[in-house]
Amino acid sequence: MRNTAIIRIHCGDQRGLIAKVTDFIHRNSGNVLALDQHTDQEEERFFMRVECNFKGIMLDQDKIRKDFQLEIADPLSMVWSIQFSDQLSRMAIFVSKASHCLFDLLARYQAGELNVKIPLIISNHKVLEGIAKKFGIPYYHLPVNKETMEKVESDMLKLLREYEVDFIVLARYMQILTSNFIDEYKYRIVNIHHSFLPAFAGAKPYHSAHARGVKIIGATGHYVTSDLDAGPIIDQDVIRISHHDTVKSLVQKGKDIEKIVLSRAVKAHVENKTMVYKNKTIIFT
Amino acid sequence: MRNTAIIRIHCGDQRGLIAKVTDFIHRNSGNVLALDQHTDQEEERFFMRVECNFKGIMLDQDKIRKDFQLEIADPLSMVWSIQFSDQLSRMAIFVSKASHCLFDLLARYQAGELNVKIPLIISNHKVLEGIAKKFGIPYYHLPVNKETMEKVESDMLKLLREYEVDFIVLARYMQILTSNFIDEYKYRIVNIHHSFLPAFAGAKPYHSAHARGVKIIGATGHYVTSDLDAGPIIDQDVIRISHHDTVKSLVQKGKDIEKIVLSRAVKAHVENKTMVYKNKTIIFT
Amino acid sequence: MRNTAIIRIHCGDQRGLIAKVTDFIHRNSGNVLALDQHTDQEEERFFMRVECNFKGIMLDQDKIRKDFQLEIADPLSMVWSIQFSDQLSRMAIFVSKASHCLFDLLARYQAGELNVKIPLIISNHKVLEGIAKKFGIPYYHLPVNKETMEKVESDMLKLLREYEVDFIVLARYMQILTSNFIDEYKYRIVNIHHSFLPAFAGAKPYHSAHARGVKIIGATGHYVTSDLDAGPIIDQDVIRISHHDTVKSLVQKGKDIEKIVLSRAVKAHVENKTMVYKNKTIIFT
Amino acid sequence: MRNTAIIRIHCGDQRGLIAKVTDFIHRNSGNVLALDQHTDQEEERFFMRVECNFKGIMLDQDKIRKDFQLEIADPLSMVWSIQFSDQLSRMAIFVSKASHCLFDLLARYQAGELNVKIPLIISNHKVLEGIAKKFGIPYYHLPVNKETMEKVESDMLKLLREYEVDFIVLARYMQILTSNFIDEYKYRIVNIHHSFLPAFAGAKPYHSAHARGVKIIGATGHYVTSDLDAGPIIDQDVIRISHHDTVKSLVQKGKDIEKIVLSRAVKAHVENKTMVYKNKTIIFT
Repeated sequence: MRNTAIIRIHCGDQRGLIAKVTDFIHRNSGNVLALDQHTDQEEERFFMRVECNFKGIMLDQDKIRKDFQLEIADPLSMVWSIQFSDQLSRMAIFVSKASHCLFDLLARYQAGELNVKIPLIISNHKVLEGIAKKFGIPYYHLPVNKETMEKVESDMLKLLREYEVDFIVLARYMQILTSNFIDEYKYRIVNIHHSFLPAFAGAKPYHSAHARGVKIIGATGHYVTSDLDAGPIIDQDVIRISHHDTVKSLVQKGKDIEKIVLSRAVKAHVENKTMVYKNKTIIFT
Repeated sequence: MRNTAIIRIHCGDQRGLIAKVTDFIHRNSGNVLALDQHTDQEEERFFMRVECNFKGIMLDQDKIRKDFQLEIADPLSMVWSIQFSDQLSRMAIFVSKASHCLFDLLARYQAGELNVKIPLIISNHKVLEGIAKKFGIPYYHLPVNKETMEKVESDMLKLLREYEVDFIVLARYMQILTSNFIDEYKYRIVNIHHSFLPAFAGAKPYHSAHARGVKIIGATGHYVTSDLDAGPIIDQDVIRISHHDTVKSLVQKGKDIEKIVLSRAVKAHVENKTMVYKNKTIIFT
Repeated sequence: MRNTAIIRIHCGDQRGLIAKVTDFIHRNSGNVLALDQHTDQEEERFFMRVECNFKGIMLDQDKIRKDFQLEIADPLSMVWSIQFSDQLSRMAIFVSKASHCLFDLLARYQAGELNVKIPLIISNHKVLEGIAKKFGIPYYHLPVNKETMEKVESDMLKLLREYEVDFIVLARYMQILTSNFIDEYKYRIVNIHHSFLPAFAGAKPYHSAHARGVKIIGATGHYVTSDLDAGPIIDQDVIRISHHDTVKSLVQKGKDIEKIVLSRAVKAHVENKTMVYKNKTIIFT
Repeated sequence: MRNTAIIRIHCGDQRGLIAKVTDFIHRNSGNVLALDQHTDQEEERFFMRVECNFKGIMLDQDKIRKDFQLEIADPLSMVWSIQFSDQLSRMAIFVSKASHCLFDLLARYQAGELNVKIPLIISNHKVLEGIAKKFGIPYYHLPVNKETMEKVESDMLKLLREYEVDFIVLARYMQILTSNFIDEYKYRIVNIHHSFLPAFAGAKPYHSAHARGVKIIGATGHYVTSDLDAGPIIDQDVIRISHHDTVKSLVQKGKDIEKIVLSRAVKAHVENKTMVYKNKTIIFT
C-alpha cells in the first residue's frame, strides 16, 4: 500500500477529463489501480475517484499536490482532494447512553477492520465510560444543556483540535450540534439516524414507526448539516417487522441495522469513497 | 377445500377466548386447520384468525353464522366475520396509464394464482383497453375531472354493484377517490403507493426520492382511507438504488417492487389474512 | 413476567388439540398470553407454542408438569416441554480466533439484551482471552487436535456440567465436535456457518463463493448434528456482493451477517421459539 | 442516443490502459459518457466498459472498428467488442409450460422497457401459444425427447439464423441443451434457475429447499454453459420463507423472484453491462 493515493474530483462535465487526469498520473510515474467515474447528466457535473500508486521510494507529495492544482484542477475549475495512504485518519466518537454502536465500532477497531486511529470518545453521559476503558481510549464526559451548549461545544472543538481529529462519528449521540460546530467539520461528521429517512426524522422514530404501522423499519447513515436529519445520505438499510412488534422490540431490532449501517457509512468515509454535491452523495464502489 | 371456512375476530382481551372459539367449532363438527392469534398488549385487544373445516355434505352456513353471533360474538363484544370457501371474491381493477401492475395481476389471474373472479376493469384512460381485451375482461373508460368526479363515482358505484364487486384494487389508478366512495368499500380498496410510506406520500414520489438522495426506494400496499396515503399498511418492500439512478431509472426499478408488493397485498386480502384496527393492520401468516 | 411459562408441544394431528391444551391452562388458573400453532399437512403433525401466566404467588411447577403429562401429553402421545420464567438459561460460548461474534454476543449480554447467564467461554486458542477478561467471564483454553480430541471433549463436558450449562453457542468455533459430544447437547448447540447453506458447506466457504462468482453471500444459524453443516436451520440472512469483492472483502462483509444471524438464532433458542422435527425447525414468531 | 457506442474490453493489466482507450475515443471525435473499470488483482486482468458518443452525422463504424483493432486491441492483446446504438438486439425466448417469466418479459417488451426486438418464441409445449398470440409474436412448437433432440436443435438453429437472433432467453425452458447448441450462442443464452445457485442445482430445487428446511430461497440468472447450472452468474435474488411454506407455496413465491431476476439479467445483457472471464461475470453498473 506504500505510495498509494486516492484522488477525488468533481467539476463541470467536459470532454477529455478522464484522459487528462490519468495522463497526469502517468507523467508522474503513477499507475491507476482503480477508477470510478460518474456523470450527473442533469447537473452536467463530472465526479471521479482514482486510486493510484506512485513509483519510487521518495514521493514528493507536496509537489504532486501543487502540480495537480496548477495543471489540472485550476484550468478545469475542479473541486478536488488527494489522500496518501501513509495518512491515517483520526476519528472521534460521540456517544450518549446507548452502547451498541460504540461497541460495534470499537470491536471492529480492535480487530483491525477500521483503518483509523480513535484518539478519544466524547459523551454527555458517564454511562459508557466503562466501555471506553475496556479499550483503553480516553473518555471525556461533557454534559450539556441549552445554557451550556455554547461553552461545551467550544470545549469539544478544543479537544478535537488537541487530538488532531479529522472526522467525527455520532454513534447515537442524541444531542443537536450548532451550525457553528458543524461548519468546523463540514461533511466530516457521520451520524446514524434510527429511521429510514426521510420517514420519521426527528426524535423517537421507533415510536412513530410503531404508531404508523409500517412493515419495514430502517436506519440511515448521513453527513450532519445544520438542517436536522436532512444531510446527505451515505447508506441506508432496512429490516422487516410485523404487527407483533412493540416499540421495545423495534428499538431492539433497529439496533442491529443501526450499527451495521453506521459502520458501513464510516468505512465509506474513511476509504474516501464519498463525495457530496448539492446535499446528495456519490458513493463509489 | 370443501366446507372450509375462515373466521376472523377481534375483541377486548380476556381469559379463555381461544378455548371458547375452538370449542364452538368442535361442537359444530368442525376441525381447526390453522389458528393464528395476536394480543396487542398496549391496546388490550385480542385478534384471531381460524381456518377450519366442517364435516357433512350439507353445511348450514346461516345457522353457524347465527349461532356464533349469539353464543360467542355477542357475549364477548366481538367484531368478527366468516368466509366460506365456496364464496369466490369478486375483484375490480382500477387503472390509469401504467400497465405493469395490471399485466402482473392479469397474468397471475390467468395462471390461476389469484383465487378471485375479475369481472371488470375501470380506467380514466383508454390506453390499457387493449390489455383488458387480451384477457377478455370488460373495460370501462370513465374519464374524470374535478367537475365530473361526483357523477363518475356514482357511475362507478353503479357498475360495481351491477358486477357484484367485493373489493377494488387500485393498480396505479392515479385519481383521488372521495370519502363518500371510500366509505362504500371501507377497508376493501387496496392501493399501491410508489414509495416507502410515510416517506414521499403524495404525487411524484420518485422525483422526491431522487431529490433527497435516498439509497433505497420502496413501494407500499395499503387500504385506502379518506386520509390520502395514510391508510393501514398491508405490505411494503424496498430496492437498493445509487447515485447512478435518474428519476427515469427509479421509475423503472420501482415498477418491479410495485407490482410484487401489490400482488402480495391483494393476496393477503383475498385470503382473509388482514385485519384492521385503529388504522393499523394485523397480517396473519 | 412472574409465573409466566412457555409450553411447546408436537404430536400427531387430531381434532381438539388446541382446546384441550388451552382448557388445561384455564383449569389451572392460567391465562393464555400468546399462542402460535402450526400444522404440517404432509407430516400430519401438530406443533404449538403457548405462552401463559398463572395466578397465585405460590405456583406448584412440579404439579403442573405432572398433571400436564398425565392428562394431556400421555393420552395424545405428545413430545413437549415447559419452561417457567424464573429459570434463566445458562449459555456457554465456544470460540476460536475470530472475535466479531463473541464481541457481538457479549455486547448484547452486557446491555441486557440476552436473557441468559454466560458462565464460561471455551476456546482452542488463547487469542480472545483478553475479550473474556474485559467482560469478567471465565475463559478456558483447551487446545485440541485429533489425538487429544476425546480427552478434551471429556474435559469440556465436565466443565459444562460443573457450570450447569443449558446450551452452547459456537461463535465461529472452527472445530468439529464428535457425535458423542453432540448427543449430550442434542438440539442445544447453536452454530453459525459462514455461508448460505446448503451452498458452500464445509471449510472455506468464502473462498468457494468467490470461486463460483455468486452475487449474494449468506450466513446460517443452525443446530449442530453429527452430520456436518446439515443440522436444522434456525435462521439465515444474505448480503449482496459484486465482482469487486475479493475473498478478503467477502470475509469482512460476511462477518456482519454472521454476527447478526447468530444473535437472532440464539435469541430464538433462548425464548423457546424453536422446535425441531425431522431435521427441520419450526420457528415461532 | 444517436451515434452512441459501448466498448467493452479485457486484457492483461498494465499501465496506461485507460488513457490509451479514452485518448483513442477523443482522437475520433468521441466523448466519454460513462466509464466503468475493474481490475482483478489476483488474475492481473483489466476490464472496462466505456459508453461514448461520436460527433458528426456520418459515423464510419467500420473504420472505428478497424482502427481500434489495429491501434489499441492488437498491441495490448485485448478481447473486446463495440456495439453502436443503432443496432437493436434480436432476442428469442424459449419456454415450456410456466407462463410467469414469459408474461413478464412480454409485458416489459410491450411497455418499451426492453431495448430489443423479439422475433420469435420457441417451446416444447403448446400451452403458452395463446400468450404469444396475444402479443403477436410467432410461436414455434418443437417437442423434444432424447431421440429427437439432435434434429430439433438443428431445426432451432435454423430458425434462429433465419430470424437473425442475437441471443436467447430461457424463460423456464425445462430442457437441457447440448454443448453443440450452446457453443453456437456462447455467453448469449441467459437462463433463470429457480434456486439460489450453487444450492439446489438440477431438477426440482423447491422440493430440495423444502426438504432441507432453508429459511430463504432464491433465483439465479446466468449464462448457460455445457456444465449444467454452473455457468457464469449474472444476478441473484432471494426471498424469506418459513416453516409454513409447502413446496407449492415455495413454487408460488419463487415465481416472483424468478421473473424479476431474469428480467434484470436480460437487461444487463442487452445493455452490454456483462463481461465473462473464467466462468465469472463482471457486471458493470
